[in-house]
Amino acid sequence: MVKNIPFTKEQVEKLLRDHPTPLYIYDEKGIRDAARRLIRAFSWSPGFKEHFAVKALPNPHIMSVLKDEGCGADCSSLPELLLAERIGLSGEEIVFTSNDTPAEEFAKAKSLGAVINLDAFEHIAYLEKHVGLPPLLSFRYNPGAKREGNDIIGKPEEAKFGMTREQLFDAYALSKSKGVKRFGLHTMVVSNERHVEYFVETARMLFDIVREVREKIGITVELVNLGGGIGIPYKPEDKEVDIETLAAGVKELYESYRFAPLKLAMECGRYITGPHGYLISRVRHIKKTYRTYAGLDATMADLMRPGMYGAYHHITVLGKENAPADETYDVVGSLCENNDKFAIGRKLPHLEPDDIVVIHDAGAHGHAMGFNYNGKLRPAEFLLRPSVASGGVGLKPDRSFKMIRRAETIDDYFATLVE
Amino acid sequence: MVKNIPFTKEQVEKLLRDHPTPLYIYDEKGIRDAARRLIRAFSWSPGFKEHFAVKALPNPHIMSVLKDEGCGADCSSLPELLLAERIGLSGEEIVFTSNDTPAEEFAKAKSLGAVINLDAFEHIAYLEKHVGLPPLLSFRYNPGAKREGNDIIGKPEEAKFGMTREQLFDAYALSKSKGVKRFGLHTMVVSNERHVEYFVETARMLFDIVREVREKIGITVELVNLGGGIGIPYKPEDKEVDIETLAAGVKELYESYRFAPLKLAMECGRYITGPHGYLISRVRHIKKTYRTYAGLDATMADLMRPGMYGAYHHITVLGKENAPADETYDVVGSLCENNDKFAIGRKLPHLEPDDIVVIHDAGAHGHAMGFNYNGKLRPAEFLLRPSVASGGVGLKPDRSFKMIRRAETIDDYFATLVE
Repeated sequence: MVKNIPFTKEQVEKLLRDHPTPLYIYDEKGIRDAARRLIRAFSWSPGFKEHFAVKALPNPHIMSVLKDEGCGADCSSLPELLLAERIGLSGEEIVFTSNDTPAEEFAKAKSLGAVINLDAFEHIAYLEKHVGLPPLLSFRYNPGAKREGNDIIGKPEEAKFGMTREQLFDAYALSKSKGVKRFGLHTMVVSNERHVEYFVETARMLFDIVREVREKIGITVELVNLGGGIGIPYKPEDKEVDIETLAAGVKELYESYRFAPLKLAMECGRYITGPHGYLISRVRHIKKTYRTYAGLDATMADLMRPGMYGAYHHITVLGKENAPADETYDVVGSLCENNDKFAIGRKLPHLEPDDIVVIHDAGAHGHAMGFNYNGKLRPAEFLLRPSVASGGVGLKPDRSFKMIRRAETIDDYFATLVE
Repeated sequence: MVKNIPFTKEQVEKLLRDHPTPLYIYDEKGIRDAARRLIRAFSWSPGFKEHFAVKALPNPHIMSVLKDEGCGADCSSLPELLLAERIGLSGEEIVFTSNDTPAEEFAKAKSLGAVINLDAFEHIAYLEKHVGLPPLLSFRYNPGAKREGNDIIGKPEEAKFGMTREQLFDAYALSKSKGVKRFGLHTMVVSNERHVEYFVETARMLFDIVREVREKIGITVELVNLGGGIGIPYKPEDKEVDIETLAAGVKELYESYRFAPLKLAMECGRYITGPHGYLISRVRHIKKTYRTYAGLDATMADLMRPGMYGAYHHITVLGKENAPADETYDVVGSLCENNDKFAIGRKLPHLEPDDIVVIHDAGAHGHAMGFNYNGKLRPAEFLLRPSVASGGVGLKPDRSFKMIRRAETIDDYFATLVE
């Protein structure tokens, strides 16, 4: 089974002449196409907005590309709000969905005019006391045992996020009484989910609440954020989410409710950038003991998902795409931590030191989750620019690599030490 | 059940006036005492050396305290070797136990005169080719199915570390034939283990090999590194490891083998600093939904062990040590990641915002595993100096806090971004 790669071995070898592995490559064309496809699928919905989940890939160059495609930002912290501000997003292009939030982060979100999406009923009083209530408030709903969640995000009733149904209605009533004029509704019950029905069911759950809030409290919710959580096919045999069918399902439902104008939003991260990020590494050592190990120059410090979640990431060996995958390797890094494995018992072509390995689907929650354990330094990030033919605006005529984050140095690692 | 805390609420409140939570406090006296106790327990063994596992707490101030107590360093990477060099360690005070190692790290270890402990048979040729063989080589043994390991480190035959028995003997023979004159032996089969017998059995396993290597290959191994892995009592009801009994068990065994002078070493990290590190945080929010959440201003970005391993860390609420623990909380951080929980269903006294919370046993693999996910910034580290009465050399007369690492800033977080 093969996965597509938007660059050639020769292109990468040229890049590696100046920049040592490991490093990340993001495919601008793939990212733009994913954003366009999502936005096009919801083009029936006036004012639909995709707020890119910054936490997935908090690089301002990527965020600018997405801004250019019409995306806003979903931010969860002050540094993420500052990134959004830095690339010129403002007002309701920014959604601030945080939890256990400090006052200064609410203050920054309010000053930017961002949509503040409250995680807790208790935050209304906190926000009012420390920052003052904004004219628009959104609330995050946690349906608890009414919904099942999935393996990744766990059971909703055991999740720390959001408010109960009762709290949600109380939140609308209380904030209305305190002068809030405009209202939103949000939920996020699944993560990395590829079944379209989940998302349609989520829309139904939220639309029911919008109707009930209007009937019971007299509030017209004007903004429904369906959350993110659209999964991607990490394994070559996994099916892609049919985003058009998903959007059509939501459309059919939406029309049946006959709402006054209601804006829909999403906050996809993984769906937009996940498949278009590649961790490039070289085989450093082959070691045979009770198993055969291919030791890379990348580690769990560069990509934590396999070590932390047991996540599958497909691996391609450049130049050996058509060689038989008839050897079995544990593909590991050099951390003194036995979780530091990119793959266990993976069938791959015969590997040798210096082989260039591509670890797929590392464009979301990849570099963002990097750490410095064992003194490991986080890698550089490169953007593979699209060619003119792909229709980008203001792009270079060739498919070149642009560094968008430098590699960490030992000085960075030592920077916070004091004498 | 209570756990001892070496500082008062008033002392911490004074510290927090100038430095916001979250932050780490390390108890210098506790660290010194642990090092002394280990070294004293092995004082029967001429030349015994504890090489502190730098990865547990890679701060040069801590390493200097331990150097002052006679410890060396166990390093796993170039930055860790540089830390050891920076505090004035040299030669065989430094052990370089790495895996999947690049040539430049071997070169640095060799230039420092460190004990190079090879993880793989294949590394002999690699080391010879790229760096040249040093006069002293140590080898890491992985006993595979002959030993059981434990839950933390997993089964030895599934661990990426070390070489098989056959490879080990081949390694001694090959390196002898290539002119290596002095030899060491190392293993590490358990992690966070509190049963003394494991360590005595490990010593027996290694001593048997030393004898067999002498008989079969004519090599007198002069250095046996018993590894680390001594556990600590994370739960208040857990028993401490009886280090004196452990050392006495190794002594009895050692004497029965009638070796020519053989130096013993260990590479404990957690045992030395683990219990003496405290993550200090404040309650930010109390939130009640399907459960009751105490939201801290610390997150999984400050201490990853509960989120990554499901590890237990005891929590004390300063000033409420004697209050009944009759409420049940999920103690969480503010990450948009449902693993971001310090405790689930933990019985604690009634909590309110601004309560100061002490998360215990965070002195090893705590700050060291921090990351910047969601734009979180890693916290400052403080050393609680011992009083003169505790017998330290050159110490301040009072029990004061000394900052040994500043908190990260947003500028640090943005440092690697390029225009």
